[in-house]
Amino acid sequence: MTALLSPEALEACLREIGAARYHNNHPFHKLLHGGALTKGQVQAWALNRYCYQTAIPRKDAALMARLEDPDTRRLWRQRIVDHDGERPGEGGIARWLALTEGLGLERDYVISTRGALPATKFAVEAYIHFVAERPMLEAIASSLTEMFSPKIIAERVAGMLANYDFVDEKTLAYFNARLSQAPRDADHALDYVKSHARTPEQQQAVLDALTFKCSVLWAQLDALYFAYVEPKLPPPDAFIPEDMRG
Amino acid sequence: MTALLSPEALEACLREIGAARYHNNHPFHKLLHGGALTKGQVQAWALNRYCYQTAIPRKDAALMARLEDPDTRRLWRQRIVDHDGERPGEGGIARWLALTEGLGLERDYVISTRGALPATKFAVEAYIHFVAERPMLEAIASSLTEMFSPKIIAERVAGMLANYDFVDEKTLAYFNARLSQAPRDADHALDYVKSHARTPEQQQAVLDALTFKCSVLWAQLDALYFAYVEPKLPPPDAFIPEDMRG
Repeated sequence: MTALLSPEALEACLREIGAARYHNNHPFHKLLHGGALTKGQVQAWALNRYCYQTAIPRKDAALMARLEDPDTRRLWRQRIVDHDGERPGEGGIARWLALTEGLGLERDYVISTRGALPATKFAVEAYIHFVAERPMLEAIASSLTEMFSPKIIAERVAGMLANYDFVDEKTLAYFNARLSQAPRDADHALDYVKSHARTPEQQQAVLDALTFKCSVLWAQLDALYFAYVEPKLPPPDAFIPEDMRG
Repeated sequence: MTALLSPEALEACLREIGAARYHNNHPFHKLLHGGALTKGQVQAWALNRYCYQTAIPRKDAALMARLEDPDTRRLWRQRIVDHDGERPGEGGIARWLALTEGLGLERDYVISTRGALPATKFAVEAYIHFVAERPMLEAIASSLTEMFSPKIIAERVAGMLANYDFVDEKTLAYFNARLSQAPRDADHALDYVKSHARTPEQQQAVLDALTFKCSVLWAQLDALYFAYVEPKLPPPDAFIPEDMRG
């Protein structure tokens, strides 16, 4: 890239990256939504995804730790509130634990992350370090996968309710909350990026940050597919669902 | 673990972890050594492994940046010399590039890491961050996979020379150098760990650090297997070997 893009053209490029690389394109997601997974495979997904969920407020705190502007910090703070809640038992992490419990996983085992795949943890930590270490513009741009999440959530909830008798609306409550939170977060971050990326180099860095973040999500599904779908080779100590045992 | 182990018992526990978790047990390595891979799959291995090779001197510098003792620093410094060489074209990274070139990969493409799997990069960065951030004892213990590398290198060189007509002794020169370097490094780190882990908690932390490092190596082979062996689903922009193209 050499020419400076208009803010609208930059947004269009971001949407193109999402269309090509967001994890709704991943074969594991197609299996998940399409009802092609066993309960054990859905458990493995929820158990691993917990590592990501629980890291998000740390990621947002790392970003706020370097945000100098109180107005932006105040807006960003709401993300932490959404995930951690106002009191114990509330917020996105608690709702994710309701999902894993609804799937029959023991709460303490999920929280320990003992059964999660190392590859999941490596991808999640790469995201936190990216946000903590890169220029603020890139750190904020890496959150822009939220632009694409309402679509995947709608597909996921409809597909999972229709196809799996072991999930219900209550266990999927996490996603309902995200349907209103994600667009608000995405709008704010997109406005920030469109107004702060003022050189071709900054615009390219923004696009690269979103590509990086798509890889973080994609790699998590690669690891799930490898361990639990095909060739089904979970690494030492990883969670083994009942329906995969002997 | 509750009781304090003797240094010898600690070493025995470390060797047990290696026996169970070192990546010579991984199915990808069995295919690599056994001659069951195509040239394209071997290229993918060498291309991805470059990310690891090239990060090792940064890892060692991160460790030395926190090492207060000049004697330990001086010994550790040799690792950086081994990888970076005394002058351009020497050292382990140059020898690894000779391997990738011998396999027909373009040097600049390898160095760019553009075609490497995101999961490879996440695992490698997790290792660097671990070494930069954890207590020195754990940082040093995470290098102890070197205890097990002479065995895998001997298997690898013999297996690859016997089974692949596209490799020869010259392209595998990296490994010959490691056969003398790795045991020296491992002996030093093992002595350090055995004399500095003086509580049960420290000993457990040492064992956990080696387990972590085994996962770093293991996850890299998981990702290669997933993308290039089965189910062969390389993520967007990853290297596609000629023998995998339509």
